Amino acid sequence: MNASDTPVVGIVGGTGPQGRGLALRLGAAGVPVWLGSRDVARAEEAAATLAAELGDRAGSRAPTGVDNAAAASAPTVFLSVPYSAHAAVLRELAPVLAGRLVVDVVVPLQPPPNLGVVVPAAGGSAAEEAQALLPQSRVVGAFHNVSARLLLRLGADPECDVLVTGDDEAAKAAVIALTELIGLRGLDAGPLANSRVVEGLTAVLLGLNKRYATRHAGIRITRIGDGGRP
Amino acid sequence: MNASDTPVVGIVGGTGPQGRGLALRLGAAGVPVWLGSRDVARAEEAAATLAAELGDRAGSRAPTGVDNAAAASAPTVFLSVPYSAHAAVLRELAPVLAGRLVVDVVVPLQPPPNLGVVVPAAGGSAAEEAQALLPQSRVVGAFHNVSARLLLRLGADPECDVLVTGDDEAAKAAVIALTELIGLRGLDAGPLANSRVVEGLTAVLLGLNKRYATRHAGIRITRIGDGGRP
Repeated sequence: MNASDTPVVGIVGGTGPQGRGLALRLGAAGVPVWLGSRDVARAEEAAATLAAELGDRAGSRAPTGVDNAAAASAPTVFLSVPYSAHAAVLRELAPVLAGRLVVDVVVPLQPPPNLGVVVPAAGGSAAEEAQALLPQSRVVGAFHNVSARLLLRLGADPECDVLVTGDDEAAKAAVIALTELIGLRGLDAGPLANSRVVEGLTAVLLGLNKRYATRHAGIRITRIGDGGRP
Repeated sequence: MNASDTPVVGIVGGTGPQGRGLALRLGAAGVPVWLGSRDVARAEEAAATLAAELGDRAGSRAPTGVDNAAAASAPTVFLSVPYSAHAAVLRELAPVLAGRLVVDVVVPLQPPPNLGVVVPAAGGSAAEEAQALLPQSRVVGAFHNVSARLLLRLGADPECDVLVTGDDEAAKAAVIALTELIGLRGLDAGPLANSRVVEGLTAVLLGLNKRYATRHAGIRITRIGDGGRP
């Protein structure tokens, strides 16, 4: 896939760090992005900042600031809202999101100082919750473990594989292709039920950052793509 | 820590692949190991096979085959039984395990063909279950993601970090030291509650093995130990 084949990507909640980071990387790869917010003025401001960052970079395309409902009308929609707003936003946008590919990047986290402790599993995962609330959409989980701050620095390598979960194989393949378009390795991490592990890994990584006085810890899967050497 | 400071490590369920793999690596590092089984004859046979594998390797120490109750009386005890036997074995050995450091390496897995799908979260994690059943022991979770088959090949590098979980900091530090003694990087992955992610990651890795026709996929945490570079 190259960017000219890529349908528009909408980002609901696109003004947060993860939303802006993904918008910047997608824009750098030439993907048309509708960056959404509840407040169009804030979306336009974020889009303008990213456009300035992209400058006249070859092959790039500046994102467009829109409201969340417009972002949700793109064929592929990233969800990047705080977990506290997740269910409410999905309920509101469910009619618009019907029939679309929805990429849930939301991670349930506990408030500090327990940011590094996984959320008790009662609710399963944000992605499973999204699929339950959006029975007419195809929900895929991805990009949970990649540092937003590194995405926002175009020159930085996040050194992080993207574990992609979902129950629709074609939808998952499309998200893996998008992942590779922005220069990250996407791996099929199994059904949507595995999201509880992938989302929880973000809490583990945030705890590692704190304990090891580092920043932006990521994950790599080893011994994949080496021809199955022993 | 070097091996001469190391107390005996007992392995309950030591004749399975993970138990033997850990016994071999610990023995190669000179750690005294009591390799346990319900059946002493099987434990002795496994210990003899590992001893032959170690041969006269410098600094190594051959494991000793014992029954599970004897293995459980070591100061540090690894639990390496199938998850189906986990609760029953712990209930039986609880009096012996009181006061000890218990390293739970058990992973709940679904039967094939769903091996790569995480177990629904109702029970939390094997390690949390172990702590509940062993209120007088200090339970630490570790070694879930490392391939048993690679541990069993002394020359192989598992290319896998060991995520160590637990609520007792000293116990966790002791397990991280053991991990490093056998040449793997151990990382403090937070409280025991995070075990559900670390254990679940094994199911994700098994699924990746299958989908990518590879073997022994492992994980590395990136950007740790690099001085927190940006």
